[in-house]
Amino acid sequence: MSTSEHSRSAATVTMRDVAKAAGVSVTTVSHVVNEKPGVRIGEEARRRVHEAVAELGYRTNALAKTLSEGSSRFIGLVADAIATTPFAGQIIQGAQDQAWKHGYVLLVANTDGNRAAEDEAIAMMLEHQVRGILYSTWYHREIQVPDALHQTDTVLVDCFARGSGLPALVPDEEQGGRTAAEELLAAGHRRIAFINTTTPSPARTGRLAGYRSALEAAGIAFDESLVFPAAPEQKGGYAAAPRLLASGATAVFCHNDRVAMGLYDGLREHGLRVPDDIAVIGFDNQEVISAHLSPPLSTVALPHYELGAAGVRLLIGAEPSSEPEVRRIACPPVRRDSI
Amino acid sequence: MSTSEHSRSAATVTMRDVAKAAGVSVTTVSHVVNEKPGVRIGEEARRRVHEAVAELGYRTNALAKTLSEGSSRFIGLVADAIATTPFAGQIIQGAQDQAWKHGYVLLVANTDGNRAAEDEAIAMMLEHQVRGILYSTWYHREIQVPDALHQTDTVLVDCFARGSGLPALVPDEEQGGRTAAEELLAAGHRRIAFINTTTPSPARTGRLAGYRSALEAAGIAFDESLVFPAAPEQKGGYAAAPRLLASGATAVFCHNDRVAMGLYDGLREHGLRVPDDIAVIGFDNQEVISAHLSPPLSTVALPHYELGAAGVRLLIGAEPSSEPEVRRIACPPVRRDSI
Repeated sequence: MSTSEHSRSAATVTMRDVAKAAGVSVTTVSHVVNEKPGVRIGEEARRRVHEAVAELGYRTNALAKTLSEGSSRFIGLVADAIATTPFAGQIIQGAQDQAWKHGYVLLVANTDGNRAAEDEAIAMMLEHQVRGILYSTWYHREIQVPDALHQTDTVLVDCFARGSGLPALVPDEEQGGRTAAEELLAAGHRRIAFINTTTPSPARTGRLAGYRSALEAAGIAFDESLVFPAAPEQKGGYAAAPRLLASGATAVFCHNDRVAMGLYDGLREHGLRVPDDIAVIGFDNQEVISAHLSPPLSTVALPHYELGAAGVRLLIGAEPSSEPEVRRIACPPVRRDSI
Repeated sequence: MSTSEHSRSAATVTMRDVAKAAGVSVTTVSHVVNEKPGVRIGEEARRRVHEAVAELGYRTNALAKTLSEGSSRFIGLVADAIATTPFAGQIIQGAQDQAWKHGYVLLVANTDGNRAAEDEAIAMMLEHQVRGILYSTWYHREIQVPDALHQTDTVLVDCFARGSGLPALVPDEEQGGRTAAEELLAAGHRRIAFINTTTPSPARTGRLAGYRSALEAAGIAFDESLVFPAAPEQKGGYAAAPRLLASGATAVFCHNDRVAMGLYDGLREHGLRVPDDIAVIGFDNQEVISAHLSPPLSTVALPHYELGAAGVRLLIGAEPSSEPEVRRIACPPVRRDSI
């Protein structure tokens, strides 16, 4: 991967830059440079646009521009679950903001996890001579890299492929788990349960390791009987309530916000109040849940926006590509009213 | 807008089509047509690829292809809330599926509702000579059309602009409201409350009109004291519970799933069970909520996928553009366990 700095050069001047320089609207610039028939533009505005075009070296046709330069200003982004979670959207937004900042445009393709759609998406991106591809998944996992990705620069986002040689950006699950436990410790809790997922994943092992290290740092011995395996959704949290209550824990870290949502239901049925009777922290910051539970749920945020943004910076060399193949992005706490 | 049928012509043959015809992988096609140095491809596979390229009229460079034809195979999609709801993602997925089917590629831009980002997105799309633009909002509303949209074919998706002359696709709010009330009527309820939003919107007036017409068709007089205004979120539903209980209603239609989520909390605090003590139906089918409440919520789906798909068909003329400027798309019921 190139590590050269891409500054905004003449090749990346947009219609918007011309509009700004000429003090006119983008529409006016478009009318002038495209010599739109039947549109009346004042002589003065027309002159200013032509001057700005000349000064900035703007070329009217982005595609012709690309051809003459031999590589395009496109960055491909392959995403797998754009229609079912807001997480893919956050990756896209982060990637788009950085792409635009550096004069690139995103070609987004949603694959719904379907390999044929993925092949088609990657082939389309290669045909458009993309600068490179961000390959992203909506939850953190190990993947098999599609062969075609090796034909261009690729950065893996929210996933990784051991031994592939491809750089990857993932959430720092261990730090996130540690942060969750620390939030509960800071409120004075010492007997802290963890409802962890039953699904093998980097989130399962990483968050558990973080929970253990936070307890250890606080001088609290790890007690395996306080770790409850549960399906990583509402039903799992609901079903865990009786065991949690029997454990005597005063606080609980839930594997994700959906587990916490189900746990709220279970606790309510037993007549317990959050946080007075038991403090709860989630994970993910899936806002439609966490911000709107009663009481609103304190949680730890998955850094999807930053994963997308850092992915573009790494791809275009705006951020040095340092040694570790897998780079971890911090998961910050989000404080609401459940602790 | 053109109404001609765009069939898959030689101009839209993709690398994937060549791979299929030659019986090889997309990667192999790419290696052969790009004459990738240092890659070993068998003579037989190489020959089959060259034959398929010749037979299908495939051209290796999508951008050169576009230039030679004078207009591009891009469709622009402007979306306003891709990072905060799954709704924009569903519009994108529907649009992408139709675009790919007809040999087009989507240029997606998220604007976060920001006018400067919107101007930049539209200018970028015009520079890439898009076939046209879908301009979409994540909730149904009237908009002011950005000037630049008049420079290309535009279809409004999940929004409309009276007097703009631009075709628009929106959810059929009235039919949706009627469907919600009919689901409750079909279960034998006669005293049906409606927790409606306080926010003026097509959803507010449309769903109310649908609720009234369903009651009327069932021979039930409209009772204004059964319509409760509430903020269209969890807090609004929660706060409406006492008034709802005092009304003697046996069933309630909630303006959206978030209202129903809050109402569930309120009903539980009063010791009432859904659906035994009171039946509930939501609206939106925001799955992370509706599918996972306890009990899972019956609701009416917003047709975001179909809005995106129909938008592309209308834009490229694959669907006749009939008279009404605003076309309504049906909102189907989703049956779960709350009725």
